[in-house]
Amino acid sequence: MKVSITSGKSEGPTRLNAFDNALIDAGIGDVNLIKVSSIIPANAQIVRLPPLETGSTVNCVLSHRISNSRGDLISAAIAVALSDNMGCVAENGGINKDPKIIREDAIFMVEYMMRKRGEKIKNLIVEEINHKVKECGAVVAALVYL
Amino acid sequence: MKVSITSGKSEGPTRLNAFDNALIDAGIGDVNLIKVSSIIPANAQIVRLPPLETGSTVNCVLSHRISNSRGDLISAAIAVALSDNMGCVAENGGINKDPKIIREDAIFMVEYMMRKRGEKIKNLIVEEINHKVKECGAVVAALVYL
Amino acid sequence: MKVSITSGKSEGPTRLNAFDNALIDAGIGDVNLIKVSSIIPANAQIVRLPPLETGSTVNCVLSHRISNSRGDLISAAIAVALSDNMGCVAENGGINKDPKIIREDAIFMVEYMMRKRGEKIKNLIVEEINHKVKECGAVVAALVYL
Repeated sequence: MKVSITSGKSEGPTRLNAFDNALIDAGIGDVNLIKVSSIIPANAQIVRLPPLETGSTVNCVLSHRISNSRGDLISAAIAVALSDNMGCVAENGGINKDPKIIREDAIFMVEYMMRKRGEKIKNLIVEEINHKVKECGAVVAALVYL
Repeated sequence: MKVSITSGKSEGPTRLNAFDNALIDAGIGDVNLIKVSSIIPANAQIVRLPPLETGSTVNCVLSHRISNSRGDLISAAIAVALSDNMGCVAENGGINKDPKIIREDAIFMVEYMMRKRGEKIKNLIVEEINHKVKECGAVVAALVYL
Repeated sequence: MKVSITSGKSEGPTRLNAFDNALIDAGIGDVNLIKVSSIIPANAQIVRLPPLETGSTVNCVLSHRISNSRGDLISAAIAVALSDNMGCVAENGGINKDPKIIREDAIFMVEYMMRKRGEKIKNLIVEEINHKVKECGAVVAALVYL
């Protein structure tokens, strides 16, 4: 199995459109996303997000925030940890929170998930995105199952 | 690929049952719905909703509202726009909002989604349903992937 | 088709981790859960939850509650009713509610779902779990499609 990690941010005229634009910015705007919980099978390879077939169905772990309050700092992050046997994903995000804390908390949570399962982390990746809202903005961070 | 557009409304003794009854009214009450985001592949045909196999798994874009406040006007709408290359779906809904506005906003959003992707709309369909709550009511509007 | 009914509870250092730990306690922590609505096909067998392949994708009906208020009583329940032709699942849950009421309401809702469909119940199962929160706790009750 292959997985990709991506993120995106955008403004838009409505909350729905800001979110949709952020998905486009992340390269996952033209597919049907299905949200799944957050376990990666053994021997998954992390690859660069390929072009996805329009309208295809794609499983993902998704963190997102949307705001239409000018000046809000919106953040989304996912932390991905892989061992030899499996992987875990932790989602985090916030509005007007310190991005450093959001990142650290995502790492804390995924490290705990792996420790709880007795798994030794070989590879830890954090994808984080922040955006200062102008009119209406959205951020997304996602792990995509290919 | 074939897709169907449907809607339903109902009262029920609890919020869960009102929602379930509205799904039955829409013809999608006896399947396992999986919510997906809102892109339709190229060359999709819109067909009348066929009988669905009981307990089968069905992907859908779903807009719904539930209320147990007597007198509430609850509304759900989806707008579906198709080009030669793909389609987009926008969900909208509200409680005690002007149904005309809900419909217009759904159209605005899906038109924007298509414009953003450089797609020329060949076919635009809006499914809208409204219900005045007696005791506990629900409305659903859905695009179903067959 | 085979289905399993399970539940779990746990504490954890964060809401995400408490929820993840409760999924592990329920035996469904190492898979990718996809939430579906709540219809079981004809002739489904209820079996003991087998070990699931790590990272596999599993459809489920899931009820859960999470709280980080010490002393909260959190409850999750699902009621499963089977006829000769199909089955229905009702989810219920609550915080600081009488577990007896949560169980009774779940049964009421699933009985109504079956009556509404003209189905005669042959088998009714309720899975219920309660937990008194120490720091941060979660409960889950689930029907898993195998």
